[in-house]
Amino acid sequence: MTRRGVGRPRAVARPETGLSPREELLAAAAELFTVNGYSATTTREVAERAGIRQATMYHYFKGKEGLLAELLESTVRPSLEAARLLAASDAPEGARLWALAHRDAALLCSGEHNLGALYLLPEADRFLDFQELRTALKQAYAGLLAPITAGLPPSERDLRADLVYAVVESVILIRRNASAPAVESMAEAVADAALRVGGVGEGDLAHLRELGRALLAGG
Amino acid sequence: MTRRGVGRPRAVARPETGLSPREELLAAAAELFTVNGYSATTTREVAERAGIRQATMYHYFKGKEGLLAELLESTVRPSLEAARLLAASDAPEGARLWALAHRDAALLCSGEHNLGALYLLPEADRFLDFQELRTALKQAYAGLLAPITAGLPPSERDLRADLVYAVVESVILIRRNASAPAVESMAEAVADAALRVGGVGEGDLAHLRELGRALLAGG
Repeated sequence: MTRRGVGRPRAVARPETGLSPREELLAAAAELFTVNGYSATTTREVAERAGIRQATMYHYFKGKEGLLAELLESTVRPSLEAARLLAASDAPEGARLWALAHRDAALLCSGEHNLGALYLLPEADRFLDFQELRTALKQAYAGLLAPITAGLPPSERDLRADLVYAVVESVILIRRNASAPAVESMAEAVADAALRVGGVGEGDLAHLRELGRALLAGG
Repeated sequence: MTRRGVGRPRAVARPETGLSPREELLAAAAELFTVNGYSATTTREVAERAGIRQATMYHYFKGKEGLLAELLESTVRPSLEAARLLAASDAPEGARLWALAHRDAALLCSGEHNLGALYLLPEADRFLDFQELRTALKQAYAGLLAPITAGLPPSERDLRADLVYAVVESVILIRRNASAPAVESMAEAVADAALRVGGVGEGDLAHLRELGRALLAGG
């Protein structure tokens, strides 16, 4: 099923989506950026698609860059918030790592459009607020992983942390396939994979997964 | 092998890189597509950057799409060839999986530009030859993983295969960071991670890694 680009703009009469103008603009940008491409999209197209006047759009966002920045940040902020909540828990690090990976993977799997694909735009490098959020999230992963990889040499520990984070983000790549599985089974599988890559054996994993599920249910 | 045919207009002022015009064009496209973005790049810019007349460029590639298709396929073809060679080996599947993941990760880590980032362009969906190569490579991974996950339910086996493949491709995401490690240590770490995600325990992994290294050295 190929969608060769998003078609005609919506009528200027706004559809009854129940979204605020700001949300409408973000939804339109998410669709156009992921389906047609970021460079190939104009602010005019976003405004038209959202059914909002271009002049009004600038009240909410500083053009295309502002829309992209907000979409990128929206893929990290909820996971960072989850990391903060989990930091206060006294559950084992492995269980908290499982819960964080689950939340994060579920977020990246959800939503109509694969916003994580925008991470690889050359433009994403320039959005410092987004990069800062991502660095903070990555540090949260590394902190939870640290006790698990305590016996390894420092360079290997860093690499292991990079890989655990990359396993979670790799749902962005999996989502490209039409046959991508449902959010819940994907999130569980990714959380398991993150712990395995971290070096957790199968016996410990079963236990930590149970605790991780409890953290998600309770938090 | 240079293919500068008689009567083809020569370079405008080609740098002395020792590359053929075709390679020169691909190198220029790789740089411009990954640094400036695909949509933001014109064929004229590619030709200029390569020091080749635009008319000559069309002798080698059907415009921008042809260049992108070739760049995308170049990130898969050598790994697929490695998979074919490994298929003939009688080493354990786990060792062959390790060797394949190593080759593939090393390929995705190498080269001056992160060509894998182009996978997430909306345009990549339309390149059927590339998608076919990728599907074949993915099947090679799934085939080597099958004996390792033989005890799992079918849906879980598929998901595990998706994840193993995604772990290898995730070097594309890791490469985005300035601090990305050297190719060799990255390739080893990714191959280890692929087997861990596949469900191989630490004891078996040490053995399979040794055999995998021998396969790479011998092949």
